[in-house]
Amino acid sequence: MIHKGLKGIACTETKLSKIDGERGELIYTGWPIKNLAKRSFEEVAYLLWYGTLPIENELKDISKRFKTSRQLPDYLKKIIENLPKKLDMLDVMRTSISAVGLTSPEKPSIQDAIKLTSMIPGIIAYRLHVLGTQKMPEIREDLPHAAYYYYMIKGHEPKPEHVKALECYMILTMEHGLNASTFSARVTTSTESDLASAITSAIGTMKGPLHGGAPTGVIELLNEASQSDDINQMLRNKIINGEKLMGFGHRVYRTLDPRAVALKEILQQNQALDDWFNFALKFEELAIQKLDELKPGRSLYTNVEYYAAAVLKALNINPELFTATFTASRIVGWSAHVIEQSQDNTIFRPKAEYIGPVFSH
Amino acid sequence: MIHKGLKGIACTETKLSKIDGERGELIYTGWPIKNLAKRSFEEVAYLLWYGTLPIENELKDISKRFKTSRQLPDYLKKIIENLPKKLDMLDVMRTSISAVGLTSPEKPSIQDAIKLTSMIPGIIAYRLHVLGTQKMPEIREDLPHAAYYYYMIKGHEPKPEHVKALECYMILTMEHGLNASTFSARVTTSTESDLASAITSAIGTMKGPLHGGAPTGVIELLNEASQSDDINQMLRNKIINGEKLMGFGHRVYRTLDPRAVALKEILQQNQALDDWFNFALKFEELAIQKLDELKPGRSLYTNVEYYAAAVLKALNINPELFTATFTASRIVGWSAHVIEQSQDNTIFRPKAEYIGPVFSH
Repeated sequence: MIHKGLKGIACTETKLSKIDGERGELIYTGWPIKNLAKRSFEEVAYLLWYGTLPIENELKDISKRFKTSRQLPDYLKKIIENLPKKLDMLDVMRTSISAVGLTSPEKPSIQDAIKLTSMIPGIIAYRLHVLGTQKMPEIREDLPHAAYYYYMIKGHEPKPEHVKALECYMILTMEHGLNASTFSARVTTSTESDLASAITSAIGTMKGPLHGGAPTGVIELLNEASQSDDINQMLRNKIINGEKLMGFGHRVYRTLDPRAVALKEILQQNQALDDWFNFALKFEELAIQKLDELKPGRSLYTNVEYYAAAVLKALNINPELFTATFTASRIVGWSAHVIEQSQDNTIFRPKAEYIGPVFSH
Repeated sequence: MIHKGLKGIACTETKLSKIDGERGELIYTGWPIKNLAKRSFEEVAYLLWYGTLPIENELKDISKRFKTSRQLPDYLKKIIENLPKKLDMLDVMRTSISAVGLTSPEKPSIQDAIKLTSMIPGIIAYRLHVLGTQKMPEIREDLPHAAYYYYMIKGHEPKPEHVKALECYMILTMEHGLNASTFSARVTTSTESDLASAITSAIGTMKGPLHGGAPTGVIELLNEASQSDDINQMLRNKIINGEKLMGFGHRVYRTLDPRAVALKEILQQNQALDDWFNFALKFEELAIQKLDELKPGRSLYTNVEYYAAAVLKALNINPELFTATFTASRIVGWSAHVIEQSQDNTIFRPKAEYIGPVFSH
């Protein structure tokens, strides 16, 4: 039997996350994500890397290590300057992490995971600078990671309600089991290769359009809706014509996507402060009503991409940076998996079934 | 059940190679490798990429495309110049292929596979130039690929018997089913990512010391033997002390490794021309005798790494370039797998079994 895509094949144990699609549950290292959504990026990264939530001193320590790992070495700037303009942002991030390299007889370490995670905002910002999109902001050590990420890719500090929403989005997308990118990082690690190699593999895998997680399609839907005179009619037409309503329904979750629930709550708490938060909440209500009315029993619930799109749209983040932003958070999960794989490793060597000819001579 | 390492799990069909460890058979796209060992690098690459051996015009055409794809773009040279000196050659190759990038709505193509394969010798040579190891040779379009590879990494043309042996080694290591590096290339491809991303993943995976295929250990054994006064006594001591005799025995092949057989034949035909070929053949004979005498029934046959070491030693290729040389040939198999995966793709998403705690609130 050929297990194409390895669907349903368990190939490792993990202490990092538990996904229960039927019950709409996502747990990071013991904690349902609704308990994590309002914490900081640094706290949840600590949880995934160390296996427990940090106590005060530990949080202070890791926050400091994030802040002091932000500078880009000069050689990396020169490399980013020399990369062809036609490369996309994921190509640039993949090449930059590869260029940093981490050849060492030691196993992948949390220290190196912090280093690569902290350099990502600077890598993106420097590329935008080279492309002439924005001036390189001065690297600062005062902002926490999520606010720093926004500051680097936008060139100015965010509003507090926007940081909250962005940080929540980043926490909720840090980790999600053995998706293709995380799996590729574990396969690379399984030869005892280094963390930079594994993250390089994961970014290259994340880049493919089938990976998902980047809410570009939802943005188009929200844009169309915001310009429509009659949103109900627009929704009705789309559903009756059999168009897939981006942001609703999920491959794994057969009920409410717990990440959507957590992100929605942040938007609700801040909707008075942001017109887009407000619009996204109203549009979701209308869309769910219409789906219930026209496709009863299909149970198409709002997924995380819907609210991710609302957040990224409200923060006015360029759609070309959506996958980059997803990468900036998922790198935490990738590196946690790399460290986990390296601690109890078996090299990945599945079988391929030969179906070609055999000539006798 | 947890299938750690996915051993024995078939996850794809393939027309590229068939490995029968019990019978000591390795087939590339229909042809036992003993029928391919004396062909050219270009012919066997053509076979793996197109699925048939080339007829005269086709061979002429692909050879020309190899030759005209050798130049390194200026930006790539600048990137190699800027990479930290402490990176190893595999880091440099991984970053260079990543920097070339191949973002495109098109599927991975043979044209791009030729391009990346043809650039590898120049990438290695330019890095050696930057490190001060040798002057950058002028890129030439007259030599076939295997001779060109030697010329670029050594800075001078090889003797004909050395080209034959190197070409044979490269052909025999082009493809070997779903080893970890090839598998990582297919996982990356499975999101519909591009060929450069997939090859970047494969190089990062190849880099790990568990991957194998680089005959460094055998070289040490051959060096020790060549300086020994009594090779029989040296072998006896090693075997009685339970030392693993590098180059003998294989994880998959329970009988003669067909690649060793093919490579041995090339050495035999040229042993009069090269002292090292001659020495390696004699040492193998003594080692097998001693293994039979002291470990009867264990059936430890000579593996491909033994003869690979003899070839690389005879050609005086720096041990630091062994994995790079392996990469220069295996890139053909990787890209063939990438193209095959893209033609009938299912995204790889295996399961991880959660074994961590679950806190209720």
